[in-house]
Amino acid sequence: MVITMVGKVPLDILRKYIFCRIGVSDPDVIVGPGYGEDSAVIDLGDRVLVVHVDPITGAVDWLGWLAVHISCNDIAVTGAKPRWLLSVLYFPEDASEELIDTITKQIDNAAKEVGVMVVGGHSEYTPGLNRPLISMTAIGLASKDKYVRTSGAKPGDSIIMTKTAAIEGTAILSTDFAHILRDKGVDNSVLKRASNFIKNISVLPEALVLTDVGVNSMHDPTEGGILGGLAEIAYSSNVKLEVWEDKIPVAEETKIICDALKVDPLKLISSGVLIASVPQERVEQALNEIHSLGIKASVIGKVEEGSGVIIHRKDGSTEQVGKSVVDELFRIWKIYE
Amino acid sequence: MVITMVGKVPLDILRKYIFCRIGVSDPDVIVGPGYGEDSAVIDLGDRVLVVHVDPITGAVDWLGWLAVHISCNDIAVTGAKPRWLLSVLYFPEDASEELIDTITKQIDNAAKEVGVMVVGGHSEYTPGLNRPLISMTAIGLASKDKYVRTSGAKPGDSIIMTKTAAIEGTAILSTDFAHILRDKGVDNSVLKRASNFIKNISVLPEALVLTDVGVNSMHDPTEGGILGGLAEIAYSSNVKLEVWEDKIPVAEETKIICDALKVDPLKLISSGVLIASVPQERVEQALNEIHSLGIKASVIGKVEEGSGVIIHRKDGSTEQVGKSVVDELFRIWKIYE
Repeated sequence: MVITMVGKVPLDILRKYIFCRIGVSDPDVIVGPGYGEDSAVIDLGDRVLVVHVDPITGAVDWLGWLAVHISCNDIAVTGAKPRWLLSVLYFPEDASEELIDTITKQIDNAAKEVGVMVVGGHSEYTPGLNRPLISMTAIGLASKDKYVRTSGAKPGDSIIMTKTAAIEGTAILSTDFAHILRDKGVDNSVLKRASNFIKNISVLPEALVLTDVGVNSMHDPTEGGILGGLAEIAYSSNVKLEVWEDKIPVAEETKIICDALKVDPLKLISSGVLIASVPQERVEQALNEIHSLGIKASVIGKVEEGSGVIIHRKDGSTEQVGKSVVDELFRIWKIYE
Repeated sequence: MVITMVGKVPLDILRKYIFCRIGVSDPDVIVGPGYGEDSAVIDLGDRVLVVHVDPITGAVDWLGWLAVHISCNDIAVTGAKPRWLLSVLYFPEDASEELIDTITKQIDNAAKEVGVMVVGGHSEYTPGLNRPLISMTAIGLASKDKYVRTSGAKPGDSIIMTKTAAIEGTAILSTDFAHILRDKGVDNSVLKRASNFIKNISVLPEALVLTDVGVNSMHDPTEGGILGGLAEIAYSSNVKLEVWEDKIPVAEETKIICDALKVDPLKLISSGVLIASVPQERVEQALNEIHSLGIKASVIGKVEEGSGVIIHRKDGSTEQVGKSVVDELFRIWKIYE
């Protein structure tokens, strides 16, 4: 298991009990809790403070490393440079020193890769836990005229995505479903390459470059995959996104694994991919700058007046995407559990 | 159960694996991870940013409310006004809508009491959990010349504490050990009054007042009680603290409950108490200002050259206090479990 997807609280519950119960209203808070916005943006006068928190559970092989990269991704897509982390490490009561050693080494390494400092946190042995759990708070700063929100997409923009669909999901399926995939004739070498996809989970380099180019919206699609991420941009920006399946790059390993399990790679968890809504006149520059980092980037669709997401499938059909996309991982875990 | 104390990771493990594995070293970080410092302090140029995170588990009756107050306390003792919160709410998989309703209402109410805004967070149903768990990140701002650290105590200072010893512990014992206490002849009316001690858990008012007066160190003693808190001030400041048991106020309810269970109220978890190291010439002003808030404040000892904490007991004996004080709650849970 690379990472465990814990169950998202449904949007209607979030709306009813969470988004509205936030204490006092602070006029310095530019972006607070809400649909599609993963980080808060706070006005500090000269700059903005960007803050985000993520709960991470999963395999010890990657846990600490992922916690750093995933939380920093959410800062980077607001156009801010992640700077500081606070970690809460919940260990099972019988956690060995080795486990603590492994996880904190990963955190240290990932933090060095991103260039951030862990400034505080808390570590506990928690009764009842059967695996470690991390809450990672990430904090960054952005200049006031450059921060980017999910909800900023504008009609006329092009939609750019980096890398290939379902990077994270491909890695998860290749490890968690390895024996099923082998039974279905998937080669060991494919599984091995697929499991390494997890190493591409940071979107920091391309997010920083796109911030400098100047984009209207950025988002890292996690649960619900590319289509889930596009829906969050569309519905929070009050625009219509039209995208074409044949323009969305899918890695060979992802294709093989998704075909074998009958999984839609466009609805499979996709940390590692960055989606951006880019003004027409900056699309070429954006693509060039991302390519110059050695990262793949593709125009997959466009933004129009209207509402929602329409995906034109390869078979000629079209599909309307709702506000919440159930991740294929949830569906398939239920089938095989 | 009012609040569950989860097991602290021992100091030698923290030193070996956590305090030193913090990614890059950031020159803007004034206070990073370390013994006795519960909040990070970051230089923003004109001001300092103060950030803190706390894991909270415990009874649903108080969970959300406590999470807000306890995390805001840690910001306030640095001399900063808490402003923004990020909450991670981990619910058991079978959590009812009512549970979510209860906890988020408490968070909303407490945030209004403190005057802070919940700017973001994450809510999840977490497989394997049998009770809700909260990670609360609190963020505040302080002026650059006014922030206070645990490690700032100076020889010549007086040690002031507010309220009475073991406020939080008294509330916990009165509910978690109610039937044992009743068996030992403790009155129901005492237990009822003791359980209400939890309402005094915020140290925000006195911390803000003391910040304005100008103190050298502030700390809110949690696990390990007053003596644990004093040890953190002494060892992080490289000074010796000398305190007198007969100067430390203990509420009647605390005395009755601690006597019945043979518990030392000075080593019992004490959120709600503020300890401060105050320059001699400002002691009178400090006491007056706290009293004018309607809050009890007492001089309990003094700071000298040297190292560690010496407590002069009422029976004429003296006791040296080590760096880590095991909370009486841990000891007594083991006896009665």
